[in-house]
This record gives sequence, C-alpha cells and structure tokens, in this order.
Amino acid sequence: MEVKITEVGPRDGLQNEKRPVSTEIKAEYIRRLVRSGLKHIEATSFVKKESIPQLADAAELSAILDLNGSVHYSALTPNVKGYEFAKNAGYKEVAVFTAASESFTKKNINRTIAESIDGFKEIFRLSKGDGIRVRGYVSTVIDCPYEGMIDPKKVLEVSKILLDLGAYEISLGETIGTGVPTEVERLLEHLLKEIPADRLAGHFHDTYGMAIANVEKAFSMGIRSFDSSSGGLGGCPYAKGAAGNLATEDLVYFLEKSGVPTGIDPALLWEASAFMENALSRELQSRTYQATKKKREP
Amino acid sequence: MEVKITEVGPRDGLQNEKRPVSTEIKAEYIRRLVRSGLKHIEATSFVKKESIPQLADAAELSAILDLNGSVHYSALTPNVKGYEFAKNAGYKEVAVFTAASESFTKKNINRTIAESIDGFKEIFRLSKGDGIRVRGYVSTVIDCPYEGMIDPKKVLEVSKILLDLGAYEISLGETIGTGVPTEVERLLEHLLKEIPADRLAGHFHDTYGMAIANVEKAFSMGIRSFDSSSGGLGGCPYAKGAAGNLATEDLVYFLEKSGVPTGIDPALLWEASAFMENALSRELQSRTYQATKKKREP
Repeated sequence: MEVKITEVGPRDGLQNEKRPVSTEIKAEYIRRLVRSGLKHIEATSFVKKESIPQLADAAELSAILDLNGSVHYSALTPNVKGYEFAKNAGYKEVAVFTAASESFTKKNINRTIAESIDGFKEIFRLSKGDGIRVRGYVSTVIDCPYEGMIDPKKVLEVSKILLDLGAYEISLGETIGTGVPTEVERLLEHLLKEIPADRLAGHFHDTYGMAIANVEKAFSMGIRSFDSSSGGLGGCPYAKGAAGNLATEDLVYFLEKSGVPTGIDPALLWEASAFMENALSRELQSRTYQATKKKREP
Repeated sequence: MEVKITEVGPRDGLQNEKRPVSTEIKAEYIRRLVRSGLKHIEATSFVKKESIPQLADAAELSAILDLNGSVHYSALTPNVKGYEFAKNAGYKEVAVFTAASESFTKKNINRTIAESIDGFKEIFRLSKGDGIRVRGYVSTVIDCPYEGMIDPKKVLEVSKILLDLGAYEISLGETIGTGVPTEVERLLEHLLKEIPADRLAGHFHDTYGMAIANVEKAFSMGIRSFDSSSGGLGGCPYAKGAAGNLATEDLVYFLEKSGVPTGIDPALLWEASAFMENALSRELQSRTYQATKKKREP
C-alpha cells in the first residue's frame, strides 16, 4: 500500500471516552477493525491502572490479541515499567509520548521535555536488544492549549532526538485540532529539511473541521503515514464533547476517492465503528460514518 | 475583504430543515447574521408555497429585511413569477438554479438542463432593465447522485451559458459532498481556461468531511467567493440527517487562521447559530460551532 494508516481508536479513542468498555467489547472491536483490513493498530497503553482506568485491562486485552500475526499491534509505554509489561505481553512495537511544548509537558506529566525524553532512553536501549520497534509521538506540533503557537524548530529538535535515540517514525500530533494547512506546510517545510518524509506521520484532529485539509497538505508534501480513529472515537480533551481524532472513515474516504488505495474495506470499517457506537450509546463524530449510516437507513 | 462569503443558512439551510421556523425567528436569525459582519445573505426563495412550505413566508420575511442597506440580500427565483415577486419585494439580486447533470435536473424539476436555462432567459432579460443582479447556481459539479461523475466539460458549458446570459457569478455546487480536492482541481483547471476566477464561487458540502479541504484547493487556485451556512444548517438531501452545507463557522475559522481576513466576528456568528440551534432544538453540525460551544460550557 502507498499509505500506512495507524488505527488509534482502541487506545487514543477509548482513553478519552467517559463510559467504561469491557475487555471483551474492546477485543471484538479490534477483531472487526482487523477484518476491515487495518494492518497497524495501537491497542492499548501500559500505564498505572489508576491514571487511566479506561485502559486498566491492558494485559488482559493483549492476551486476547494475536500479537504474532500479520497485523502490527502497538502499545503506548510511558516508562520502563510499562515497556516491560508490553514486552512481556508480546508486543513487537511500543510508542513513547512527548510534546513540542514545555508548558504542555509540564501540565501533562509534570516534567520538562528533556526530562520526559530522559525517561525514554532506557526504553530505547532495551528495545534494541529485544527487537522491539519504538514509535515516537510528539504532540502540540502546531498549537499548544497553554502557550499558543509552537515554533517548528522546537518540533524538529524533539523529533530528531527521538529519531537519534532509535524511533523508527515520529507521529506529529496536532493535538487540539486548531491547525490549518498553511501551518502544516510551514511545519513540514522545516522538518523535511532534516528528516525524510518516510520517518514522519500525521496525527490530526477534526475539532475545527480542518483534519482532512491538513492530511491533504501533508500528503502533497510526501507524508504517507497517518493516524486515525474509527468513527472519530475519542473527543478533544481540550474541548470536552467536541470532535477529536480524525476519523478513519473520513481518511479512507478521502484517500480512496483521491485514487490512493488503502486496502481497507469501507463497509467492514463502518461495521466496526457501528459496533462501538452501539457499545458506547452515543453518536460517533465521523462525517463519513454518519453519512453512510443515514444512507443505510430504510 | 479578500474573500466574499455568501451566507445561505436562511434559504438553503432552513429549506432542508424538517421543523417549521416562524418568520420572526428567521428575521431575528438574519439580524444576528448581519450583526456578525456577513455582507451577502441569501434570504429566501420565491417558489410555490406548496413546493417548499419552509419558505412559504418569503414575502413576509422580505418585508422585514432592510433590502436597501449595506448588506446584499438575494432570493432564489426558479421562474419569472418568482422573479417578479422578488423584484416587488425590493431585492437587488436574485439567483437561478440549474445543474451540470441531466438526470439530476430531470429528477429534480422534470426538465432538461437546456429547458431549465430557457426558463431563465426571461429573468435575465428583465433583470437588465430592472438593475437586478443575477447569480447562477450550477449544482452537481463533481458527482451526481443519479449518474455519478460529471464531466468538467459539462460544467463549463452550463456555466458559460449562464454567464453569457448575464449572470455576474457562478456558484459551483458540490451538491452531495462526495468530491475531493483532486476532483476540485480537475474541475477548476478546466473552468479557469475560459472563465476568470472572480466569476466563480465554491459551494461545498461537508457530508463526508471534505468541505474545508475542497475550499483550500479552490482558494489555492484563485477562487475568492464561497457559500456557507451558519452552524452548517441544512442537512444533505441525499443522506437525510447527515451533515450538509459547509458551515460558515468552519469557513471563517479556516480563512482567519490562514491569515485571510473575513470581516466576520466569530463570537457574534456563533451567537446567530446558537439562536437557531435553540429554535430548531437539534445540535448543529459545524465542528467549529460545537467546539466553541463546548469551550464555553462551565
């Protein structure tokens, strides 16, 4: 496939849902996502159970998944303890998470960016011996809810550190969804001077309806890896109840209609989201999901 | 202003709403739209009362509006009778409506495209003597719900006929919201060979979440006139209940964040939509409207 789609619904999506979801429902949701053709799925996060109760069943869920099959599963690991859990669960890929904004990192995890990266060094070191790939998330790449506009230089600096440590890809998180294509262009122009396009992924939010326009800009500049969440699962943590993650349905619709094959069956993807819409008892945000639903109604 | 925004909420939006809205509520909605800074507002349509009961109060509503002020109001006029009503009501601008798809025109108004245009010739003739401007809508410019992909040649042909008859601007209706930027590009590349960019407007729908990406593409190709509906009012007539018109909030957000001044106050625009959301007792679809609402909640 020309593009890589990383489905983050089970982790990034469900983490931001108020309603608890049982392990069995999560497993069935992931089975359906796999059936639709998705090959990269971020399944869960190995964090302290108290800090994110929605994902407290990380080990139980992971035991159900086929981590040795053709689907690439990954788990978020905030520290070495989480990494060890993920490794023991059988993951071949983990993800670490920092930001390009000092105030965001401070507020979120009470560390500086440098301190947060220091905490990952041991994960990177261990991962090499363990044959585990590490993906790096850099959030607030355009705007920060606390300090406003972020300098692309800062994004480049943080991304390069993670790549130098051994990350195979950097997912650029447009965390609050306020970015527009000219800002994406400015950011990528700066990053692409020193980082090849195939080491970067776009992680956009549709909070203000800008997600697909930003994907389009990034795609036109050579980015071929995007994160999305089926149905648009997961709200925007900085405007509770508003739309959050770019929906996988909207992304797949955009790519396929633009002539870019994704290998994903839109009808089966829709079924996976419909299963979760039913489980969560709330309307999912994806435009394409909702339009498809309305067209299916008798 | 560098861009022209034609607010179509009161006409295109309310026409597609199930719930009836009183004339006084419409007038107050329009007053609030004006207060936000909108300068071009399509207020209503002069059609047979039975065919679109939502707009049966066209004459009463128009009597309340200040049609001689600095705001440019327009009314849709499907035929000479409607035109005469609009003229008598005091409009300085009317709009006529056809499509680039024969099957769409046939299904919608039981005429060929040529027959529909024949019906407008008398409007164009009269408008010149009356000093009334005519805007031409061409719908289904990319996809048609009945015949699929539309050839840009057909859009050019229909647009040129309307321009030759005297239309000052053609609004290109991406009626079902299925178009993507590469298709907008293909269409505009063809049209711009023979029509200057300042005679064209983009009318996009957000049914599949593509609206802003399509605006961005059109803007990058020189288009500076866009139609939108406050709050995203008006569903998609071909997927009832799904998102329809591009929301004015999303458009204004996109433009302003991209450095393009619109002259519109986002907070006052939000107030106008909030007034209608309350009147309609249903959640409006605009992403920016909803994110703003959620941020305002205590």
